[in-house]
Amino acid sequence: MKLELLNVDDGIHETTSEIKVGTGSGRIAMRRMKGGLSEGVDVVTVDNGRMSLQVLPTRGMGVWKGLVDGVPVQWNSPVQRPVNPAYVDPMRLGGIGWVDGFNELIARCGLGWHGAPGADCIRDSNGKIIAEPFLPLHGRIANLPAHRVTASVDQDVLSVTGLVDEGCLFGGWLRLESTLRTGLNSSEFEITDTVTNMAGTPAETEILYHCNVGEPFLEQGSVLHTAVRELAPRNARAAEGISMWNLYEGPTPGFPEQVYFADPASDRQGWAVSVLADSKSERAFSVRYDTSTLPWFTLWKNTQARQDGYVTGLEPGSTFPNPRSVERQEGRLRLLQSGESVTYRLRFEVSTGKARTRELLDEVTALQISTAKIVHSEPKPGWAS
Amino acid sequence: MKLELLNVDDGIHETTSEIKVGTGSGRIAMRRMKGGLSEGVDVVTVDNGRMSLQVLPTRGMGVWKGLVDGVPVQWNSPVQRPVNPAYVDPMRLGGIGWVDGFNELIARCGLGWHGAPGADCIRDSNGKIIAEPFLPLHGRIANLPAHRVTASVDQDVLSVTGLVDEGCLFGGWLRLESTLRTGLNSSEFEITDTVTNMAGTPAETEILYHCNVGEPFLEQGSVLHTAVRELAPRNARAAEGISMWNLYEGPTPGFPEQVYFADPASDRQGWAVSVLADSKSERAFSVRYDTSTLPWFTLWKNTQARQDGYVTGLEPGSTFPNPRSVERQEGRLRLLQSGESVTYRLRFEVSTGKARTRELLDEVTALQISTAKIVHSEPKPGWAS
Amino acid sequence: MKLELLNVDDGIHETTSEIKVGTGSGRIAMRRMKGGLSEGVDVVTVDNGRMSLQVLPTRGMGVWKGLVDGVPVQWNSPVQRPVNPAYVDPMRLGGIGWVDGFNELIARCGLGWHGAPGADCIRDSNGKIIAEPFLPLHGRIANLPAHRVTASVDQDVLSVTGLVDEGCLFGGWLRLESTLRTGLNSSEFEITDTVTNMAGTPAETEILYHCNVGEPFLEQGSVLHTAVRELAPRNARAAEGISMWNLYEGPTPGFPEQVYFADPASDRQGWAVSVLADSKSERAFSVRYDTSTLPWFTLWKNTQARQDGYVTGLEPGSTFPNPRSVERQEGRLRLLQSGESVTYRLRFEVSTGKARTRELLDEVTALQISTAKIVHSEPKPGWAS
Repeated sequence: MKLELLNVDDGIHETTSEIKVGTGSGRIAMRRMKGGLSEGVDVVTVDNGRMSLQVLPTRGMGVWKGLVDGVPVQWNSPVQRPVNPAYVDPMRLGGIGWVDGFNELIARCGLGWHGAPGADCIRDSNGKIIAEPFLPLHGRIANLPAHRVTASVDQDVLSVTGLVDEGCLFGGWLRLESTLRTGLNSSEFEITDTVTNMAGTPAETEILYHCNVGEPFLEQGSVLHTAVRELAPRNARAAEGISMWNLYEGPTPGFPEQVYFADPASDRQGWAVSVLADSKSERAFSVRYDTSTLPWFTLWKNTQARQDGYVTGLEPGSTFPNPRSVERQEGRLRLLQSGESVTYRLRFEVSTGKARTRELLDEVTALQISTAKIVHSEPKPGWAS
Repeated sequence: MKLELLNVDDGIHETTSEIKVGTGSGRIAMRRMKGGLSEGVDVVTVDNGRMSLQVLPTRGMGVWKGLVDGVPVQWNSPVQRPVNPAYVDPMRLGGIGWVDGFNELIARCGLGWHGAPGADCIRDSNGKIIAEPFLPLHGRIANLPAHRVTASVDQDVLSVTGLVDEGCLFGGWLRLESTLRTGLNSSEFEITDTVTNMAGTPAETEILYHCNVGEPFLEQGSVLHTAVRELAPRNARAAEGISMWNLYEGPTPGFPEQVYFADPASDRQGWAVSVLADSKSERAFSVRYDTSTLPWFTLWKNTQARQDGYVTGLEPGSTFPNPRSVERQEGRLRLLQSGESVTYRLRFEVSTGKARTRELLDEVTALQISTAKIVHSEPKPGWAS
Repeated sequence: MKLELLNVDDGIHETTSEIKVGTGSGRIAMRRMKGGLSEGVDVVTVDNGRMSLQVLPTRGMGVWKGLVDGVPVQWNSPVQRPVNPAYVDPMRLGGIGWVDGFNELIARCGLGWHGAPGADCIRDSNGKIIAEPFLPLHGRIANLPAHRVTASVDQDVLSVTGLVDEGCLFGGWLRLESTLRTGLNSSEFEITDTVTNMAGTPAETEILYHCNVGEPFLEQGSVLHTAVRELAPRNARAAEGISMWNLYEGPTPGFPEQVYFADPASDRQGWAVSVLADSKSERAFSVRYDTSTLPWFTLWKNTQARQDGYVTGLEPGSTFPNPRSVERQEGRLRLLQSGESVTYRLRFEVSTGKARTRELLDEVTALQISTAKIVHSEPKPGWAS
């Protein structure tokens, strides 16, 4: 069963019909927000009967927030509701205007670039500088609306697929085809994203999945369980906290963020896993990701006061969130030929009970035991910018 | 009787119901504009039977214009209709893009900063520069839409209250709760604004009420009646006109603006008053303001050609419209602790007859007589930037 | 017969009524797009029974695309649909953010300026620099929505008229009144644009009609037929191709654009004509323009890969697309006094058959035969910046 929710070309914008699934509250439906900075933002609710997710076509198919077994999966940004990209100026505040719309559980950074703002430096084959575009924080994709969105239910699987184009004359053309899937009454969902270079010439691309979690998963004593081959602080500030890089403090007004870069361990299929567990190892939020295209992991600790955004980011990426010039120089940036695609795969799971959380943590432990681990106390050359 | 006009969280956007008041045309109702730069702008009409005001939730609860006894209270900006903030780029023209949406009778400037554009310079406790954000003209609040708006009528008092949030991750969180009130068949209205620091850390805040009036209140021979303790020109251009700082010329193509800064006299309750009267002292527009939180007054004379914006601004403020760094250095900037609020109070009155205008002018005269007055012929150090 | 399609002041936004013309498919009607970057874009279809044109009030009355005798008249930009200006930041990418919304058959550049981005330098009568505003690519008009649009049918003539204001306090006020007209079952249409200086002081104005055509008119072997008095390459890159300036290659991935500037020949009435014919001289797209106000012609060759925008621009202009400072210095910029107007006239014709195309080419040939022609192999001083 399929329902086209949005199709710009055909004039479809479906907010009255919905797909019902199962015998309970299962359904997929779209609504449009009105007023404030949320004016015109479409929200697709994917409810599998146990877990409800709010997907944002207007914001590049980001996931606003979830609710699993009655437990909110989200964080509290000072920007309290989804923001229409029309109200976001990426160039604000020296190029970090991206934060004006940042409050999602899952926000994509990319596609042409992501990471810290700054001037890129593009050279021709002779090394001559031919362009120095200023690239604002985290790229365009989170502020680009999808032009086509389809909901479908097949057996007990609910899914939503969106198409988002990033491009302009002289600026390339990358297309994201994003599908979010979940099973009836499941506490898991997966995201499969294919990025295609629609342009006639090669294009650089990179992506970072900014997965952001707050209370009740994050609290004083929460632990980030993840198996790594190598981990290093991004800068001196992060180095200060290296001895407890995976432990969390409670809300701390004025806490300056700490960021760690990692080369994650992966299982035989090449999948890595990161699990944020609360202080009692009862509730957990986990993300698994296919390291064949998402080989790097960034951990963002931002345990500020509750009102200021008490949050941590689990961020699988094709690269680290350095300026693109750094990623290019270090050979982490991917070049897509004309027509070429790359697919990113992630699986999320929310555990609301001790038994399942224990299994998740055991899995991480087993993976780390079989993997040699290096934790650098200082930034690693070639990783940090 | 209450009517929720807008509530983003609850999906309320009320343009069909209205509150009727009294036996005449009294009512509160909201409509949405369509097309042009006004696309999506909500306008709340507050009509007390004698005076009608157009309030703009989409533009930070500004007051577009009024009509009292059939007399328009407004000015004619080259931008002829309310502009959706989605069409305003504050960084345009070197940081004065704010003017692209400027045409209101009352436009707030603030909340994090206002005044001339420029790079601020923020230092840590050791005096080390830690940030130099470029702050465009007059801040964000006039280009932020309210997320909740309520209309109410209690006895013979009509009011509209709006909530507007200004904030982002790493950028603080200030909330404006603004209420505009007027009585049935009155020619007066009041604005009570409470700004709260919702963030977990202290925040600087400043505000300027840019109250702008054109014809028929402004004409050749109009006079600005206000009692001051001290007044000074902002710069050399304003100094040229110091001898007639409170007198107005007729529309003058190419007239370069003149701005005066003042320390206003206030009555025993701490209220100051400024009255713009026409050349015959018949019609008058007055603003009273509580100097306990609005201690400064700025006068903007911009008697350009009619089509270019023949207008004067009566501007009570918590500070002067200098770059924020100047206001900080001079100790005029207010710091709000986490959770702390400040309330600003203003009362407006439109007189359309000689008798009442005479009373207003007498009131100003009495206040000035009891107050020593200094008028500087040159900019005053510490006031101008 | 008249139908007001849009009137912001009167709250008119007509998407249900239409004007029917003739006995076939002739009609004028407006629809509103939903979703993606096209959210809120109004499209007026003008169908004369043979030719259908899509006019964009939301984008300064640009013409998105046409269809004549079943042949598409358009090009394929990486930005595939009309873009709401709310999603365009002209300052992006160093001031070429205009390209984010660029995909029209006819896009106006202007009104206050157009051309390459850069800081203008404005001096007073003593030569002192008084302002250096940064002017982004191609001006504001293509990203300003009309505030009033009227459709009408008179006899067998269909027309649409739109009003678009470009202005702000301290920034002048230019008004475009644009009318597009076509006759029943015609393959021609005309545009008559009047730009008026609504401000109280003189204003500079310039305009460029960026008329962009792709396949099937553009293909390997297509020829640009136009009679010129003088033609020169814009820069070294264009000089490389001067020997085949009016011949086209097929889609060429990575082709760097080539631009030529010309002083066009005109007929006794002062009209010039440019015709793009396909390789078999079968199909042709032509533009005629009144050189009394559009004395210059710019040719843009951008034969990139299909997906990247395989397109050529035929661009009559009041000036060349250099930075405004260059046009001012060279005396090509027009000054409009307060209240003064200038009218631009263009006529477009689409030929889908050999006979008519032959007539068009003969006309160009005859005009060139009677006109002495200079083709410079290098950029001409005073033309290029």
